[in-house]
Amino acid sequence: MNLKDYQAACQGRVDAALRRLFAAPRAELRRLYQAMAYSVVNGGKRVRPLLAYAACEALGGGAERADGAACAVELVHAYSLVHDDLPAMDDDDLRRGQPTTHIAFDEACAILAGDGLQALAFEVLADAAHNPQDADTRLAMVARLARAAGPAGMVGGQAIDLGSVGVQLDQAALETMHRHKTGALIEASVCLGALASGRSDAASLDALQRYARAIGLAFQVQDDILDVESDTATLGKTQGKDQAHDKPTYPALLGLDAAKAYALALRDQALAALEPFDQRADALRELARYIVARSH
Amino acid sequence: MNLKDYQAACQGRVDAALRRLFAAPRAELRRLYQAMAYSVVNGGKRVRPLLAYAACEALGGGAERADGAACAVELVHAYSLVHDDLPAMDDDDLRRGQPTTHIAFDEACAILAGDGLQALAFEVLADAAHNPQDADTRLAMVARLARAAGPAGMVGGQAIDLGSVGVQLDQAALETMHRHKTGALIEASVCLGALASGRSDAASLDALQRYARAIGLAFQVQDDILDVESDTATLGKTQGKDQAHDKPTYPALLGLDAAKAYALALRDQALAALEPFDQRADALRELARYIVARSH
Repeated sequence: MNLKDYQAACQGRVDAALRRLFAAPRAELRRLYQAMAYSVVNGGKRVRPLLAYAACEALGGGAERADGAACAVELVHAYSLVHDDLPAMDDDDLRRGQPTTHIAFDEACAILAGDGLQALAFEVLADAAHNPQDADTRLAMVARLARAAGPAGMVGGQAIDLGSVGVQLDQAALETMHRHKTGALIEASVCLGALASGRSDAASLDALQRYARAIGLAFQVQDDILDVESDTATLGKTQGKDQAHDKPTYPALLGLDAAKAYALALRDQALAALEPFDQRADALRELARYIVARSH
Repeated sequence: MNLKDYQAACQGRVDAALRRLFAAPRAELRRLYQAMAYSVVNGGKRVRPLLAYAACEALGGGAERADGAACAVELVHAYSLVHDDLPAMDDDDLRRGQPTTHIAFDEACAILAGDGLQALAFEVLADAAHNPQDADTRLAMVARLARAAGPAGMVGGQAIDLGSVGVQLDQAALETMHRHKTGALIEASVCLGALASGRSDAASLDALQRYARAIGLAFQVQDDILDVESDTATLGKTQGKDQAHDKPTYPALLGLDAAKAYALALRDQALAALEPFDQRADALRELARYIVARSH
């Protein structure tokens, strides 16, 4: 299991599936579809699609079963970034070195592109042509993604985050924010992939959920550590940005050494949750190891 | 059949169902849920829920079967208004005489409230507790609403509208805009209500779809006529606003008399589409008559 190769394979699969979604059905809609495509087809690492594919394969499902799940979670992720970058939100002009959608197009177009991408995620899940599952499974996937993306999940996390700037959060409050803002969609990615396998049961879903919660948090803790430790060149974004914005971080709360120990403990929790699974869960295992070992 | 009483009954039903959705699951999310509730529970006429209930009843389904459909279409409508009112879009400070969501809360909160409302619409449709249908029907409703709300539907219509200011549209282009911007969700409201009845077939769905297309367009034509004819006090919004914004209108394209004749012809198309239905479709018939007779 080479994670880099696996990641590239997942990226290729989901990018091909995503590209098929952005043919404008009529000329008047071309600019909107271009803005949606621009927001999605951007060389992203596709961590959430990878989780969907890997969870599907951990349960013995073929990757092709998880294409719809992989597309849907990436569409929701992409829409959240477009809206997050807006002037009224984080006001970011660059993402992955490229102009953000509201800079490359305009603000109204970016709002609409984000709105359209969210709707498209549910359209993909509901449609057997994109998501070749039985009706019950597709419906369970819609319900799971709607909860994860909505006000009690990701959108709620963004609201908590916006309300937290300049506020002294304790560790529990910081984790509540992260579990909503990024954790909910990471958990949903794993869960949708598992559902797509057609072989999930309550026990496997519960184990994969525990895995997802642990790696989701580990990713945040490691991000905070890298924000302190890396120089700007390695990280590809402005170093110390979170601290400069007075956003709470794990190193600030726990100290740097304790934050590192916490990231490793979360990795171990993730690996422990995968104990019932055989070698088909190795991609998930490698990813857990990578998250806390990465330098950017 | 008294349309006013029927409308009040539908409004009562859907408002009660909507209010149950806005209990914040935790204190940190209270402001977001308040913003969502503010955007939805606003004394709106609930035309789309009425269409869902009336279509369900036209096919012999009880109103309680259409509560989920009614909620979902109103949630999508409400989210679209919140985003439409944003400074980068129509930049409106007032709606129904009240401060718009980004004025009453703030712009970031309004973006997130809109995003959350869209997710909630799909959550409601997918959940049997809110939408008591079998899995196939719920899934068909999700697919139908996602298409209608998304880039090939309502969001696409808003993009066309934004691209049309100051552009000389002909009648075909104006209708393309309206069929996307408002028509798609009106058609979906009728279609979701019909699906909710559990008694729809291809022929009844097709007839109801033709009805919905005709009244959706009639509503726009009449709106344009009222914008020219009414004084500001009767209309509750600034008279001549569309013309002042250099937006294309039917009276400007066709002349006032021809626009009035067109509205009546669309009403007759709508009534003709309902010919196969018995008196249980009288609410739909009354609505078609009301749309072109109303003075505000």
